[in-house]
Amino acid sequence: MPSQDLRVAVIGAGLMGADHVERIAHRTVRAEVSAVVDIDAERAAGAAKAAEGAQCFTSVEELLQAQAADAVVLATPGFLHEEALLKILEAGLPVMCEKPLTPDPESSLRVIEVEKAAGRQLIQVGFMRRFDAGYRRLKQIIDSGEYGELLMLHHQHRNASTPETFTDEMLIHDSVVHEFDAVRFFSGEEISNVQVRSGRRSSLATKLVRDPQHVTIQTASGLLADVEIFVNAQLGYQVHTQASFERGVVKIGESGGHEFTAEQVTGRQIDQSFHTRFVDAYDAEIQQWVDDVLAGQVTGPNAWDGYAAAAVCAAGAKAQSEGGIVDVELAEKPDFYA
Amino acid sequence: MPSQDLRVAVIGAGLMGADHVERIAHRTVRAEVSAVVDIDAERAAGAAKAAEGAQCFTSVEELLQAQAADAVVLATPGFLHEEALLKILEAGLPVMCEKPLTPDPESSLRVIEVEKAAGRQLIQVGFMRRFDAGYRRLKQIIDSGEYGELLMLHHQHRNASTPETFTDEMLIHDSVVHEFDAVRFFSGEEISNVQVRSGRRSSLATKLVRDPQHVTIQTASGLLADVEIFVNAQLGYQVHTQASFERGVVKIGESGGHEFTAEQVTGRQIDQSFHTRFVDAYDAEIQQWVDDVLAGQVTGPNAWDGYAAAAVCAAGAKAQSEGGIVDVELAEKPDFYA
Amino acid sequence: MPSQDLRVAVIGAGLMGADHVERIAHRTVRAEVSAVVDIDAERAAGAAKAAEGAQCFTSVEELLQAQAADAVVLATPGFLHEEALLKILEAGLPVMCEKPLTPDPESSLRVIEVEKAAGRQLIQVGFMRRFDAGYRRLKQIIDSGEYGELLMLHHQHRNASTPETFTDEMLIHDSVVHEFDAVRFFSGEEISNVQVRSGRRSSLATKLVRDPQHVTIQTASGLLADVEIFVNAQLGYQVHTQASFERGVVKIGESGGHEFTAEQVTGRQIDQSFHTRFVDAYDAEIQQWVDDVLAGQVTGPNAWDGYAAAAVCAAGAKAQSEGGIVDVELAEKPDFYA
Amino acid sequence: MPSQDLRVAVIGAGLMGADHVERIAHRTVRAEVSAVVDIDAERAAGAAKAAEGAQCFTSVEELLQAQAADAVVLATPGFLHEEALLKILEAGLPVMCEKPLTPDPESSLRVIEVEKAAGRQLIQVGFMRRFDAGYRRLKQIIDSGEYGELLMLHHQHRNASTPETFTDEMLIHDSVVHEFDAVRFFSGEEISNVQVRSGRRSSLATKLVRDPQHVTIQTASGLLADVEIFVNAQLGYQVHTQASFERGVVKIGESGGHEFTAEQVTGRQIDQSFHTRFVDAYDAEIQQWVDDVLAGQVTGPNAWDGYAAAAVCAAGAKAQSEGGIVDVELAEKPDFYA
Repeated sequence: MPSQDLRVAVIGAGLMGADHVERIAHRTVRAEVSAVVDIDAERAAGAAKAAEGAQCFTSVEELLQAQAADAVVLATPGFLHEEALLKILEAGLPVMCEKPLTPDPESSLRVIEVEKAAGRQLIQVGFMRRFDAGYRRLKQIIDSGEYGELLMLHHQHRNASTPETFTDEMLIHDSVVHEFDAVRFFSGEEISNVQVRSGRRSSLATKLVRDPQHVTIQTASGLLADVEIFVNAQLGYQVHTQASFERGVVKIGESGGHEFTAEQVTGRQIDQSFHTRFVDAYDAEIQQWVDDVLAGQVTGPNAWDGYAAAAVCAAGAKAQSEGGIVDVELAEKPDFYA
Repeated sequence: MPSQDLRVAVIGAGLMGADHVERIAHRTVRAEVSAVVDIDAERAAGAAKAAEGAQCFTSVEELLQAQAADAVVLATPGFLHEEALLKILEAGLPVMCEKPLTPDPESSLRVIEVEKAAGRQLIQVGFMRRFDAGYRRLKQIIDSGEYGELLMLHHQHRNASTPETFTDEMLIHDSVVHEFDAVRFFSGEEISNVQVRSGRRSSLATKLVRDPQHVTIQTASGLLADVEIFVNAQLGYQVHTQASFERGVVKIGESGGHEFTAEQVTGRQIDQSFHTRFVDAYDAEIQQWVDDVLAGQVTGPNAWDGYAAAAVCAAGAKAQSEGGIVDVELAEKPDFYA
Repeated sequence: MPSQDLRVAVIGAGLMGADHVERIAHRTVRAEVSAVVDIDAERAAGAAKAAEGAQCFTSVEELLQAQAADAVVLATPGFLHEEALLKILEAGLPVMCEKPLTPDPESSLRVIEVEKAAGRQLIQVGFMRRFDAGYRRLKQIIDSGEYGELLMLHHQHRNASTPETFTDEMLIHDSVVHEFDAVRFFSGEEISNVQVRSGRRSSLATKLVRDPQHVTIQTASGLLADVEIFVNAQLGYQVHTQASFERGVVKIGESGGHEFTAEQVTGRQIDQSFHTRFVDAYDAEIQQWVDDVLAGQVTGPNAWDGYAAAAVCAAGAKAQSEGGIVDVELAEKPDFYA
Repeated sequence: MPSQDLRVAVIGAGLMGADHVERIAHRTVRAEVSAVVDIDAERAAGAAKAAEGAQCFTSVEELLQAQAADAVVLATPGFLHEEALLKILEAGLPVMCEKPLTPDPESSLRVIEVEKAAGRQLIQVGFMRRFDAGYRRLKQIIDSGEYGELLMLHHQHRNASTPETFTDEMLIHDSVVHEFDAVRFFSGEEISNVQVRSGRRSSLATKLVRDPQHVTIQTASGLLADVEIFVNAQLGYQVHTQASFERGVVKIGESGGHEFTAEQVTGRQIDQSFHTRFVDAYDAEIQQWVDDVLAGQVTGPNAWDGYAAAAVCAAGAKAQSEGGIVDVELAEKPDFYA
């Protein structure tokens, strides 16, 4: 008989958490949702309906005391991550922490210290794009050397629109953070410096954000990457990457699906949200995390990746206000994450 | 706690059966492989390695006697299906029968009679294309009436190459049978007549097959569909469909994946086999079948679909030798399958 | 000094003729419009405005008597072609005759007899697609043998809509005639038989035409070609050809131009009429004809091509009413056209 | 009768000049090549063979003295332009000057002073991309406001390879100069500043050039544009532009032509040189110049455009060595060019 399914608790029953409950309950092999935790008991109960047999709690402490989970998905707002992570690590539970690890490099470093003290890696960070089929394929191509060495990366990241409260800083921390991680993922290197320039502003952009912006990223060995970030692009949700090699160019993320011809146009529909664009990546992310937890390992993005992203975001926010090239300040990487 | 997983036996441990063992063991939710059956005990044991805890048997009788399964995947060669299906139906087990249901309409009708006598539908037939994302999308578009009524279907079906033993008749029964089912699926109608023409023959075709051939299909209400079938096309495995509507045209099956530019070409790689082209469709097919079995229903292609395909294949084979338009002979459809 | 420009008379000052006046006057090298002929003097004068120095006439006789042209473009309605051609041939003038050569094979044969009697080829027929860049490229690829032998041709021909007076017969004679010529052009062979089937009819089709229809064409050596003809397709004007070879497939005619992404779609605009779709082909056709006339030769589609198209159209119209495969009746080809 | 053809002299019978001789002699309406000028008499005679009746000269003075031309195409190396232009302007002849106008902003300003003194514009500069169908279409879309205001431009410019002598400075002056002009053309604005960054260097790049490089351009009103310039990209010749608007994105320059499927790939061939990529643009450029000369006007890129490009190149070359953002120094624009 197959071994027992992994009992997973989902902490935070908002949009993202509820999604994970549904995913783990119905589309993930070798795992079940054993508990849903939310300070709002009603919200927890609502999300738990999708998972037969799941218990509900209103705090991490209750969950841990009840020993109702073998592993945890942390989907609360980022500013609550540090406190929760410390308790989860203390209990020795593996955790899939939605991005960001924490909102700033200092708190991320504190989490890293505690994980190191625990003696084994327990944290995976939710950079789900690393599990997208296109990202994986491009990573393979880069590593294979099929087209020679990677020379440049060009990213396009477009959202249909943002809430009125969306700020310049959120454009870095919530949106471009994905490209920061992507550049680290593709290059296998740390990021050395960041530059952010903004030019003409869309009249359709919300008030608090200069939109679009152009971000240039350079890695330790000198690789240049850039990002066209446009979060009020109206047309839908698009994430493209183009990699230039010594002997070829590879593009991922172009619109797939069916081709239609109607009303004088031949074309394809584009995704309207990251939910549909990356639904398969989320599924693959959680499945691999479950498999890794059962195997006692972390192979996805780890706490160091979460810290490094926070450090680059800090430099990016500084670059936004300064205009020039800003160096990234990074602690020395512990062998623990080698 | 979630309810018990469905115990599935896979009968036939060849390429297809072994694939299903691996799929159910590792990528299917709410199911486990409880048994593998093959007349060759070693082959059964080999396939069973992928599924922790699976028992092995060398005959359907042993399997049934041991009561080691709640449901069955039948993946033996087609000429063995009738005998196995009758035993499985007698035991009252749901079965996912790889195509064909049986090799000819007469034996398919006999299976239908036994299923009808059983009083409830137990058989799903393995027309996996119905679970392909593109096929599902096109079916939705047709049913939605978004572009008006469906007027024509154009299919292209290419294989890289065939074994030397591949015959004209196999071209109909093993290859075009998928388009016969596709036309029935998309139109929601029975096929009335079939015409097959062959013209210039590829010098790279294997000896026993005229290749390529052109097949024209007409449904009960008059809808025309055609198929370019080319099984020694060298270039890879391609399955495209183009649907023409009153106010638009939709294409599915074009090459996806990443775009590369190298050596003077911008392009995309094409699949080399149906395994990679339809891997997601197979996964979706089995998952939905498991969900349906747990819900006590058949929503996928059923025994009648299997019979109708066999009847159209019989007409197709006749059309190959005659050149003209051949009518399909079909029994009256029992209300049982309404 | 460069030699004198070719003096071209355009006969017929309707839409097509006026187009040619403008083309020859402004976009054709080594030619000038010396005369415009139309039974309606006002219409002739209107068209002639685009060509500085062009004289106007109301009959072919007047034109010939005035010796005002070195060569002629004949753009009157098809039923007037025979009479005009005989006079032009008698005068020994080279002529670019818009399609059809004449409306039926019998009259085309009579024209051929007169041209033969004249002792040298003087007629080019306006199958302008042969001058389209895509058609030329595909013809080169076929002749090169780059992908092995040509095995199948698949054509799609769509118009946005037709006038209310458009009939089944016009669908063959005015629309599919282009594909009949294309198959002869690509294959370098005569067409042996034709089959026409119609299925579901678009509710948006005009009253006198079954639309769409499916045409199958076979050449002397057995090559199969088919045509999806849909003249009320609403979406615009599209002419695609796909050629299947022993080791590859080539498509021409897909929408070009710029790619746009807006309102949830990534796509390209499609042409709305044959004027825009084939404007470059018309220009190239006339330029090459002028060059050929100056060199004393006919290298484009000749009178035999015009006759053969008329013969295939006659078979096509018969096939429309009969449903089965209809053989094409063709006179023996004179060495004169070898 | 049509008026007399424009008598054009081509000065410089190298690759580019010989191309123009052939173009004007055979593909340009209302113009003839009346003279070919080259210091190497044999080379002049060689090029002149393509143009019936053309005289040959070995100096601009001889040409002018013989009064053998109504207008001039100047296709000598750039460092010889100033001297030739002054003589041509003095003779009052219209001139199509291949890029660059002159190699540096100072000499370009001197040419401008002389043209101003002549009292009317006589110079067009050979930025042929402005005559490319894609460029024209994008310019129309920008000016139409169809997708709202233009917000960002992203350019890709790739050459297969460079001669060993190709330097960093040539990368700016010979290659990126086209994008400098493109940004001015599309935006209708002067360029304010330029930044050039280089990262990883291709091991296949020739010795004297850091390759690829990334160039950021900002216009007077703040519009950001960037250029991926990669002159040893191996794969062929590619020039793409992507324009992001408030409500849409438009791409031009993607590979056109036929689509092929063979050897496991579906794709399109890419151009191997600027000759094939921009052949139609060169033809359109010369035709429009001829038409403009006959109409006594300059509507293409003028001497001011040539000067501005030289000024931006000077800033670009400085930016290459400095890394930061370098302001462009520009004289005040005379009303003469308004």
